Amino acid sequence: MINQFLYLVPLLGVVGLIVMAFKSAWVSKQDAGDENMQELAGYIAKGAMAFLKAEWRVLSIFVVFAAALLAYSGSVSSVNGIEIHSSWIISIAFIIGAVFSATAGYIGMNVATKANVRTTQAARTSLAKALKVSFTGGTVMGLGVAGLAVFGLGGLFIVFLKIFNVVEVNSNEMKTAIEVLTGFSLGAESIALFARVGGGIYTKAADVGADLVGKVEAGIPEDDVRNPATIADNVGDNVGDVAGMGADLFGSYVATILATMVLGQEIIIEKSNGISIDGLNGFSPILLPMVIAGLGIIFSIVGTWFVRISGEKSNVQNALNLGNWSSIILTGIVSFFLVNYMLPENMVLRGYEFTAMQVFYAIVVGLVVGALMSIVTEYYTAMGKEPVNSIIRQSATGHATNIIGGLSVGMKSTVIPILVLAGGIMSSYYFAGLYGVAIAAAGMMATTAMQLAIDAFGPIADNAGGIAEMSQLPPEVRERTDNLDAVGNTTAATGKGFAIASAALTALALFAAFVGVAGIDAIDIYKANVLAGLFVGAMIPFIFSALAIAAVGRAAMDMVQEVRRQFREIPGIMEYKAKPEYEKCVEISTKASIREMMLPGAIALITPIIVGFIFGPEVLGGLLAGVTVSGVLMGIFQNNAGGAWDNAKKSFEKGVEINGEMYYKKSEPHKASVTGDTVGDPFKDTSGPSMNILIKLMSIVSLVIAPYIAVGSQDKMGDDCCAKEKTEVSACCSEGDHHAEATKCDLNACSKMTKEECAMMCDSMGCSADEKAKCMSLYNDKGEYVGACMSSCGKKCTSKEECMSNCGEACASKH
Amino acid sequence: MINQFLYLVPLLGVVGLIVMAFKSAWVSKQDAGDENMQELAGYIAKGAMAFLKAEWRVLSIFVVFAAALLAYSGSVSSVNGIEIHSSWIISIAFIIGAVFSATAGYIGMNVATKANVRTTQAARTSLAKALKVSFTGGTVMGLGVAGLAVFGLGGLFIVFLKIFNVVEVNSNEMKTAIEVLTGFSLGAESIALFARVGGGIYTKAADVGADLVGKVEAGIPEDDVRNPATIADNVGDNVGDVAGMGADLFGSYVATILATMVLGQEIIIEKSNGISIDGLNGFSPILLPMVIAGLGIIFSIVGTWFVRISGEKSNVQNALNLGNWSSIILTGIVSFFLVNYMLPENMVLRGYEFTAMQVFYAIVVGLVVGALMSIVTEYYTAMGKEPVNSIIRQSATGHATNIIGGLSVGMKSTVIPILVLAGGIMSSYYFAGLYGVAIAAAGMMATTAMQLAIDAFGPIADNAGGIAEMSQLPPEVRERTDNLDAVGNTTAATGKGFAIASAALTALALFAAFVGVAGIDAIDIYKANVLAGLFVGAMIPFIFSALAIAAVGRAAMDMVQEVRRQFREIPGIMEYKAKPEYEKCVEISTKASIREMMLPGAIALITPIIVGFIFGPEVLGGLLAGVTVSGVLMGIFQNNAGGAWDNAKKSFEKGVEINGEMYYKKSEPHKASVTGDTVGDPFKDTSGPSMNILIKLMSIVSLVIAPYIAVGSQDKMGDDCCAKEKTEVSACCSEGDHHAEATKCDLNACSKMTKEECAMMCDSMGCSADEKAKCMSLYNDKGEYVGACMSSCGKKCTSKEECMSNCGEACASKH
Repeated sequence: MINQFLYLVPLLGVVGLIVMAFKSAWVSKQDAGDENMQELAGYIAKGAMAFLKAEWRVLSIFVVFAAALLAYSGSVSSVNGIEIHSSWIISIAFIIGAVFSATAGYIGMNVATKANVRTTQAARTSLAKALKVSFTGGTVMGLGVAGLAVFGLGGLFIVFLKIFNVVEVNSNEMKTAIEVLTGFSLGAESIALFARVGGGIYTKAADVGADLVGKVEAGIPEDDVRNPATIADNVGDNVGDVAGMGADLFGSYVATILATMVLGQEIIIEKSNGISIDGLNGFSPILLPMVIAGLGIIFSIVGTWFVRISGEKSNVQNALNLGNWSSIILTGIVSFFLVNYMLPENMVLRGYEFTAMQVFYAIVVGLVVGALMSIVTEYYTAMGKEPVNSIIRQSATGHATNIIGGLSVGMKSTVIPILVLAGGIMSSYYFAGLYGVAIAAAGMMATTAMQLAIDAFGPIADNAGGIAEMSQLPPEVRERTDNLDAVGNTTAATGKGFAIASAALTALALFAAFVGVAGIDAIDIYKANVLAGLFVGAMIPFIFSALAIAAVGRAAMDMVQEVRRQFREIPGIMEYKAKPEYEKCVEISTKASIREMMLPGAIALITPIIVGFIFGPEVLGGLLAGVTVSGVLMGIFQNNAGGAWDNAKKSFEKGVEINGEMYYKKSEPHKASVTGDTVGDPFKDTSGPSMNILIKLMSIVSLVIAPYIAVGSQDKMGDDCCAKEKTEVSACCSEGDHHAEATKCDLNACSKMTKEECAMMCDSMGCSADEKAKCMSLYNDKGEYVGACMSSCGKKCTSKEECMSNCGEACASKH
Repeated sequence: MINQFLYLVPLLGVVGLIVMAFKSAWVSKQDAGDENMQELAGYIAKGAMAFLKAEWRVLSIFVVFAAALLAYSGSVSSVNGIEIHSSWIISIAFIIGAVFSATAGYIGMNVATKANVRTTQAARTSLAKALKVSFTGGTVMGLGVAGLAVFGLGGLFIVFLKIFNVVEVNSNEMKTAIEVLTGFSLGAESIALFARVGGGIYTKAADVGADLVGKVEAGIPEDDVRNPATIADNVGDNVGDVAGMGADLFGSYVATILATMVLGQEIIIEKSNGISIDGLNGFSPILLPMVIAGLGIIFSIVGTWFVRISGEKSNVQNALNLGNWSSIILTGIVSFFLVNYMLPENMVLRGYEFTAMQVFYAIVVGLVVGALMSIVTEYYTAMGKEPVNSIIRQSATGHATNIIGGLSVGMKSTVIPILVLAGGIMSSYYFAGLYGVAIAAAGMMATTAMQLAIDAFGPIADNAGGIAEMSQLPPEVRERTDNLDAVGNTTAATGKGFAIASAALTALALFAAFVGVAGIDAIDIYKANVLAGLFVGAMIPFIFSALAIAAVGRAAMDMVQEVRRQFREIPGIMEYKAKPEYEKCVEISTKASIREMMLPGAIALITPIIVGFIFGPEVLGGLLAGVTVSGVLMGIFQNNAGGAWDNAKKSFEKGVEINGEMYYKKSEPHKASVTGDTVGDPFKDTSGPSMNILIKLMSIVSLVIAPYIAVGSQDKMGDDCCAKEKTEVSACCSEGDHHAEATKCDLNACSKMTKEECAMMCDSMGCSADEKAKCMSLYNDKGEYVGACMSSCGKKCTSKEECMSNCGEACASKH
């Protein structure tokens, strides 16, 4: 039975990849338009590949270096006598994760750079055809990401079960298998960080640079073929919005499933006659998230069938919504049966009891949170709604009030998402403990293929419009692509809401997994050093955003200089007589993005390692909480402010009414709105979306190092302890007077005895009832020796000082 | 001995107030200039008073209402049998706190509106004279605030000791006295919130409104007498920067001392022959912060003697720095002797042991943190330094890049302050536990009088310049006031760094006090509901900022409409033939600020109450941590971004070089910098500084309600418990099998017995050793019954389910 499920998972991934291959072939077969269009599309495809290659060159160095480090750390079998359940194979998992993530990005970008020009060509005939081509392109991306993730994770899991000879769920071999599997997630998430940050810098440097000189200084329209930066701008859409987004969700998808598996591994399934009552040898909580993810691919494929329109007047948004909701609802329904079929009726995780039905409720919570986050994001960023209208009104009094309005909208827009998220955390936990939080995230991510299809369709349509403009095609073509592009802007915004929600839940699931692996059972912000960790953690999204924004600013300035130079030095550009040197601009964006992604990337990767090894797991826990909370807030703030500014500007294209007067493009309020949009660009496409990966990556790095720091700090305690005098060591077991030796009962001796032995010793030595009670209290319910502090703070410690430093006054004061 | 110190405190406050009265009289005696100047100053004074009166009218309703609530809650002597140590007198303390805070604001504003015109007049003779008048005005403010705070706190403390017949430090009477004293702090902080937010909205609505129409549309210079909003703008400087800042620091000052006292009350001082070894009946840790504050007033007075310059070319900044550093160093030196004289050699707080010298080290940490925060803030906001220069360079490419640059500088500027703060928390805790954190804050705040004198001097000089401009005095007068104003801008920025650092440390001290009073001993963010609280808490500074910024935007638009109307409808304004209706603009700002301060104020006051009573103290603790962390970050970000934008704009007045070209006022880059400055105005003067009070007020509200929710949630447990079946109730006392009734020992009965009685019962019933051990483990070291969970998480709970919901798995898994 277990094998069926085990092999079903990668199989479902393969199904997704096969469907993807067919869809990809279909896109390639479509008409790519006339020679001019093909030439322009060729520039874009070439630019995109140039970026990918440059990025891969740099990242391969990083991957080799990190893999070597992982191989070394994985080969450490024990630190100071305490066993570590890992293997050098983690480095292989890491490399595979990195390669899969890069491949997912490549597949998406490859199809997107084909689909763009084909969409333009299709738009010459009908809107329906154009939607079909662009959405199929998006579907290829979605299925590629989801298929690779499920195939990779499911396949590696089978391989690792074999390699490490896993028989029992609650065994050390299983721990090793899962620790090694985190390498896959780490590889995926690392590449995602650089793809997202690098891609984000690329796209906005090109966009801002192109706009500043082209639109503002030279007065030529957007996507004008005379603008040297226009190709780089279109490449950027593919690099940032397609490959970056794909790598981001690939990472979230993998990390969520993995975190659920880590927690699932801790769930104890009752046995009846030696056989686990789930009929899956106790593997059911581990398999569940993978199976749901696998089936989610199928439902996403089903969902795509609903995305179709008939006439020119059809509502594209509704078609996409129908597809999305179909796959979400199907996932929900099937989860109900799956949960009841796979899971036993009752489970316990870290003392929290829950039922199979409650796991289903937690999945529903995840689906609802995802949907609500998308809806709220749409409200705050959509044209015609009050938030965007308020920015439009404030554009009437100038640039500054437009900016103030956008910042205020962005900050306000954090309220409901945070309440939704807080409610989601509390209710999914209420239903099924920490497993509930993780499975809620997994449920939400199940339809990632569909989500990504909808997301990736936007930039393809945007590119198609760009090619139409550059090829000077008839206006109805641009009209059709504009229609698709407008929908794409909304889906981009809602996709970001989905991405940040998934990142938040993923981070929390990883956080919970980290706590378990690190061997701590509380992160107490009442302790000064943990609180300091929280402060430092919360600051990281600020510096990360600052670096990302500043990078865009610097790269855009380089771009401006280059465009100005070309206008100045190449005669005839303006009269369409000479071709601009597009590749120079592509090169500037490529170089800048690779250069500028280093520092933020390093901060995300190195901070948890430094903090974890110096200050221990609990302070690192505080740091992670700070990063997550502040990252989610900064992400929502920046995404929504940027989205609202963008649509406020777009509203002027059709004309807006402010205080009874109509304003159009080129009016003063419109200029103010362009300022807002330019400020919003790096917010919504560079730093805002990077927050997702920042919080996930820092959590996953922490999870990977957790076994080492858990052991490391316990070991440190041991050393401290030995250095102390014997009286101090036994102080823990004495009461008030600090002189255990003085009583006739050597309570300290109990640490080497079972509960029964200790009780016997007490009796034989004639201890008083009080003294014996004291001894007995050193054992937990299972009769295991845990020491006096254990009951206060979950940590074993043998002197007051040690207890103070590990557990805080709460514990120490009880001595 | 104790009485000497007790009476010394209010006496030092009185000394401060007497010196203040002399300085105030001196300012009044100075020449107020010609009739025209006096008329303009009269408008400003009248406008300022009009605002204060309007504000007081609204706040008096709030105060009466809140006092009634407090009187009711204070009169509750017990909730369900558990004693509450409070009294209806807390409402009196609250009213006194509110009145003192309002008075402090009034004193400052009164002298500032006199000193401004006298500074203008003094500037006709010499820079030294002008500095003397303006700085003396600031000194009056500083001494007023510090004097009232020390006198109020010290005086009330003596009164409450008498009223409640306090004899012992660790007594219930003492708890009552201190709980009642928190009312004083709550009153002060509540008024401060409205003063800061209302004042902040007022000043920026007037400023932005005046600039948008005056400078941008009508093309008349700043502070031009023809601009109807110019008086409101100058009133705003007094309302926001003087009264608001004063109330803010008054609140911090009081709250810090109080938090240290609350923690000091918990310190156990050893007795020798029945007499506390500190010679102060164990009061020394409580008295220390008050005595330091009192002596800080004296050293601030000494410090003012150093603030003097001789010639026209003297460096004003250096003179202020000399004064500031003198008082800081004097405080440090005297603290050394004071600590060693007053405190016993060794102390213990919540299990953390520390020495008197370590308390001194903690004070030094506080002084260093305050100084570093000021220095860092200056770096990020000062003219000529790299951060401001980077914004200037980015102004060359337009409005948008200027904004991006400023936002990026603001975010970057959080890094060092957060690291300093985190280091400060860790090291002050390391030295002297939580008392160390609190006393560090108290040490930092000791020289508040001096800090405020330097702060308040800025707006006075600014006003003086305004009056010089409006009265069309000769250019050398304006030059002298501009010199002072420029220094004032720097001191305003550094003052904000000091204020946010003090607010952060104060909030942490209050946080620690809250934890103690609420009876919890951990705030574990690993628990889902606490983490949810952290998320919601971190969101509050965002919505608070959004509301404050949006309020400024709205009020500024009203102002713009009014100014436009006057220019249109009053003929001859532009030709100096008709006087604008200044009072109309004053009224708009007044009304808007009063209206708009309500919602943010309500959020700050009500959120902790709702969360505390519904979700209990630990979730509220999570909320407070979230508010503090995110509030500090948002405060630093907004203050520094605003300050940097402001000085980037100011740099254009003398001309700046960008890429080899010189740019001056009215150039395109200058216009971009004006946009940044306008965006930065509400950042740095409304929402940024409000963060200080937000985090402090929410902490102090929590501290005030702490006894009620501590009891309240325990009581709720009791209720839940009763509703449960008896088997469940006693499950906690049984082991594994959940059938306590089945054993012959009714462990549950122990809850009504002393430890001895229970032990006897066990013996008489023939309980097994295990059963008796179980019973004995329900008592703490003092022999008090605490229940089984108490030892795990500090909370009493009587069933597994209840334990789960209150204490998390850490506890529940032990059942």
